[in-house]
Amino acid sequence: MSSTLRVTVWGENLHDRTSEAVKAVYPEGMHNTIAHALRATLPEGAVVKTATQDQPEHGLTDEILENTDVLTWWGHMAHHQVEDAVVARVHQRVLSGMGLIVLHSGHWSKIFVRLMGTTCALRWRDDDCETVYTVNPSHPIAYNVPPVFTIPQQEMYGEYFDIPQPDELVFLSSFQGGEVFRSGCCFVRGQGRIFYFSPGHETYPVYHQAEIQQIIANAVQWASQPPRPRYATSTCIHSPLGWMNQK
Amino acid sequence: MSSTLRVTVWGENLHDRTSEAVKAVYPEGMHNTIAHALRATLPEGAVVKTATQDQPEHGLTDEILENTDVLTWWGHMAHHQVEDAVVARVHQRVLSGMGLIVLHSGHWSKIFVRLMGTTCALRWRDDDCETVYTVNPSHPIAYNVPPVFTIPQQEMYGEYFDIPQPDELVFLSSFQGGEVFRSGCCFVRGQGRIFYFSPGHETYPVYHQAEIQQIIANAVQWASQPPRPRYATSTCIHSPLGWMNQK
Amino acid sequence: MSSTLRVTVWGENLHDRTSEAVKAVYPEGMHNTIAHALRATLPEGAVVKTATQDQPEHGLTDEILENTDVLTWWGHMAHHQVEDAVVARVHQRVLSGMGLIVLHSGHWSKIFVRLMGTTCALRWRDDDCETVYTVNPSHPIAYNVPPVFTIPQQEMYGEYFDIPQPDELVFLSSFQGGEVFRSGCCFVRGQGRIFYFSPGHETYPVYHQAEIQQIIANAVQWASQPPRPRYATSTCIHSPLGWMNQK
Amino acid sequence: MSSTLRVTVWGENLHDRTSEAVKAVYPEGMHNTIAHALRATLPEGAVVKTATQDQPEHGLTDEILENTDVLTWWGHMAHHQVEDAVVARVHQRVLSGMGLIVLHSGHWSKIFVRLMGTTCALRWRDDDCETVYTVNPSHPIAYNVPPVFTIPQQEMYGEYFDIPQPDELVFLSSFQGGEVFRSGCCFVRGQGRIFYFSPGHETYPVYHQAEIQQIIANAVQWASQPPRPRYATSTCIHSPLGWMNQK
Repeated sequence: MSSTLRVTVWGENLHDRTSEAVKAVYPEGMHNTIAHALRATLPEGAVVKTATQDQPEHGLTDEILENTDVLTWWGHMAHHQVEDAVVARVHQRVLSGMGLIVLHSGHWSKIFVRLMGTTCALRWRDDDCETVYTVNPSHPIAYNVPPVFTIPQQEMYGEYFDIPQPDELVFLSSFQGGEVFRSGCCFVRGQGRIFYFSPGHETYPVYHQAEIQQIIANAVQWASQPPRPRYATSTCIHSPLGWMNQK
Repeated sequence: MSSTLRVTVWGENLHDRTSEAVKAVYPEGMHNTIAHALRATLPEGAVVKTATQDQPEHGLTDEILENTDVLTWWGHMAHHQVEDAVVARVHQRVLSGMGLIVLHSGHWSKIFVRLMGTTCALRWRDDDCETVYTVNPSHPIAYNVPPVFTIPQQEMYGEYFDIPQPDELVFLSSFQGGEVFRSGCCFVRGQGRIFYFSPGHETYPVYHQAEIQQIIANAVQWASQPPRPRYATSTCIHSPLGWMNQK
Repeated sequence: MSSTLRVTVWGENLHDRTSEAVKAVYPEGMHNTIAHALRATLPEGAVVKTATQDQPEHGLTDEILENTDVLTWWGHMAHHQVEDAVVARVHQRVLSGMGLIVLHSGHWSKIFVRLMGTTCALRWRDDDCETVYTVNPSHPIAYNVPPVFTIPQQEMYGEYFDIPQPDELVFLSSFQGGEVFRSGCCFVRGQGRIFYFSPGHETYPVYHQAEIQQIIANAVQWASQPPRPRYATSTCIHSPLGWMNQK
Repeated sequence: MSSTLRVTVWGENLHDRTSEAVKAVYPEGMHNTIAHALRATLPEGAVVKTATQDQPEHGLTDEILENTDVLTWWGHMAHHQVEDAVVARVHQRVLSGMGLIVLHSGHWSKIFVRLMGTTCALRWRDDDCETVYTVNPSHPIAYNVPPVFTIPQQEMYGEYFDIPQPDELVFLSSFQGGEVFRSGCCFVRGQGRIFYFSPGHETYPVYHQAEIQQIIANAVQWASQPPRPRYATSTCIHSPLGWMNQK
C-alpha cells in the first residue's frame, strides 16, 4: 500500500449505456461523473480510476483491488449478476482494510448485504424532493457540508431501513411524502471503513450537485487509511504462552 | 407466536459423545446441562427443548424454528458440516425476530459469521483462569450477576476479536496470561436480538457454574420478544403515495 | 426497592393552571393525563403517582425518589426555577439506577442537560404535523407501535439536536416543513436508563393519543430494573490486592 | 481558526514541582514531556504550547482557548481547585469544536465529569504492569500502534469505570492483578471530539514510552478539525417557515 490515495469508482454501467433518460443526465456514465468530481475535490496526488461490471472479473481483479485504497460502488438492476467470487474477494479486501463507499441502490448489492448481515431492505418511491440534515457536525464526512441542503429531484428511500445500527450516523433525510431516512451511515467491519450514502439516482443529476460531490470526497478520505501493518484475521491465532508471560 | 417463552438449546453434540474428557464433565452432553439450567432459572412457563447437529436438518426444521423464540448455539469442531440451507433458515428467522445466544466456540459458526459480516477470528489458548467484569451494570443481562467473578478453568479467548463494535458491551474478561476479551456482546440484526457470550468449554465445568447459568438465562429473556406483528423486510416496499399524503 | 414498579410522573404544572388553551386540552394538567394513561397501560400492580414543581422540594424529596423506580419529566417555561439541589438529587438517583423518561420540552431541563453533557439545543416551530417512524422494531420501547403513525398537530422539533449519539435510536420523525428529528433516543448513564421522547405539547392533545401512551408505558418498563444490588460508584474504589489474587 | 494545528498541553503541575519521586521521572514536569513528544511526532507545522493550573485563569484564558484546536488535560490531586468559570469556558469550547484529550487521572477532572454526565469513578491500585490491546485496528488513533504492548510499571485502573458507553472503543487493558479497563475511549459531544486515555502516571515513565507518545499524537490529530463554519448551538433556533417551504 503506497502513501498515495488510490480510488476505484465502480459502476454497473448498464442503463448508463442503454437508457436515453440516463444518458441525458450522465452522458459518460455515472461512474465517470463521480470519478471526475473526485479528481477535482480530493487532495492533489489522489489517483482515481474506474471499473465497470461488464469488464472481465467486473474490473475487480486481485491486482486492481490490491492497488485500491477506497472503492465506491453503484449498482442497481444487475446486483444478482455480480459473480460470487468477486464479491468474496471484495469482502476479504474490505475486512483487510480497503474502504468502501456504497451509493444509493448499492444498498441492495451483494457486497453490502454480506457486510451488514441483514436484508438491507427499505421503502422507496420515484420522484420526490430530498432534504438532507447533518446530525454529526464534527464528523470528517460532514466537512464543508451545510447544516441542511436540498436535492431538488430524487428517488425516495424511506425507513424502515433494515441495517445494523450504524457506528456513526452523519446524515438524516426527509422527503415531501413525509418519509425519513438514515441517509449517511458509517460502519467499521474488520479493518475496513464503510460509508453508505443514499442520495443519487440514474435519472436525476444528483452526482452533479456540489454538496453530494463534497460528501463523497469526504467519505473517501475518511475511509482511507495511511499505510499500516495489517492484522492477520483470516484465521484464529493460537497464543501458547500468553502475551504477558512473553515479556 | 404464543406468549410462552420457547427456547431451543442447540448442541453440536459431537465430542459430547466421543470424548471421555467431555463425558466426564457433561455426561448428558452440554446441551442438556444448559437446558436443565434454563428450566431451573427461567420464569415458570418457559418451555426449553434441545436439538442437535446429528438430527435430520440438524434438528432445526421450519416447524421447530417457527416455534422457537430464542435459540442458543454451541458448536466447535463441525461448523463446516452445518448445511448451508439450515444456516440460511436460521438467519432468516433471526432477522424476523428470533433471539440467538451464541456460546463460546460458536463465534466461528456459519450463522454467527453471516450475521456479523466479519471473520469473527480471535486469539486462543487452552487452560487458563478467566475473570469476568460487568461493565454495563444496569443491563438486563447483568441482572443478579456480581461486579466481578472468576471461572477457575477456562480456554483463553483474547483480542483482537474481529467483530463489529457491539451495540452494547456487557462483560469484559481477563486471563492470567494477560489477555483481555469482550466476553459479553449484544447485537441487534433486523428484528432479532443476538448475544455472544464467550465463557464455556467442553472440558471445563463452566456450564455448571451459577453465574454462567444466570447470565445465559438473562440473555434468553433479553433476546426474547413478546408476540408482536412482524415487519416484512424480505424485500423492498414500494410506497406510491407517501405517508403524509395518505392522511 | 420493592418488586412493584413505582412510577412518579413529574409536571411543571404551570401553564396547565394558567393558560386557557392548555386547560382546554388537559383540564387536569398534563401530568395527570400521563399518569392516568400509565395506570391503564402498565402491567397490574404498578403504582403511578404525580409530583409537580410547585410542591415543596418540587415534590421530589429524598423519600419520594428513594421510592421511585422510574421518573417521567415534563417541563417547559420554568426550567431555570428548578432548584439545583433537587437536580443534583435526581441526577444522583438516576446514576444509581432510577429510570428517567424525558418528554418534549424537557430536552432543555437542567437534569437532561446535566446527564447529556451537551447543550441539547434544537430547531423548533409551532404548528406542524409529525410523522413518527420506528427504526428499531425489536426494541422493547417499540412494542405494539406501528411502523409509521402520524400526530396530526404538533410543535416541530428539528435537527440539529445537540445530544450525544444515542446508545439506541428507536424513533425518527418528519414534519411537513421538511424537518427530521431523532424523536426517540435511549441513553444509559451510570446504572440508570434514560429515554428521551420528543412528541408532546401543552396545547395539542398528543398525550391523549394511543400510540404515544403505549410508547411512554413501554419506555417506563424498559427503564425500570428489577431489585438488584447497586454498585457504589459515588467514589473511586481502592483495590489493594487485585481481584484475581483474592481468589 | 487557522489551518495550522494548535495544541495546548495542560498540566496540573503540582507534584511535578514538589515531589522528588515525580521530579526524578519528569524533571521538567509532565506537561513538558508530553509537549516535547507531540512536537516530535505531529506533522510539521503543528504548534504545541503548555499551560498550567498555577497560571492566572489556569492558563486557559478566552484568548488561549480561542487559539487552541486541541487541549490535552492532566490533573490529579487538585481537581477541586480548578475554577468553575474556567471549566465552563473549556466546556463551551469543546461543544463548539475544540478537541479534548483527557489523560489518566483526568478521568476525575471537573471538565471530563461534566462532559460525561456520570461519576467517572473507577477501581485503582498502585504499582502494577499494564498490557494494552488494540480492539479497533483501523481507527486513526491506532495508527502505527502494535496489536499488543506492555507498560512495565503503571497504576492500575480497573472496571467498573462509570462512563457512558464510548462512541468508539479503541484500546482495552489488563493488569497482573487480573483487572481489565477500557483504556482508550472516543466520545463526540456537541461539535467536539474527546479521547480518554488511561495510561500515564506521575511516578512512572509512561509518557516517555514510544507507543504512548504515538497514541497521544494520533488522538490529537483525530480530535482536531479543519477550519469549518461552526453551528450555533448555544440556544434553540426558531425556524418559522420550514426548510422545505423555503425553497
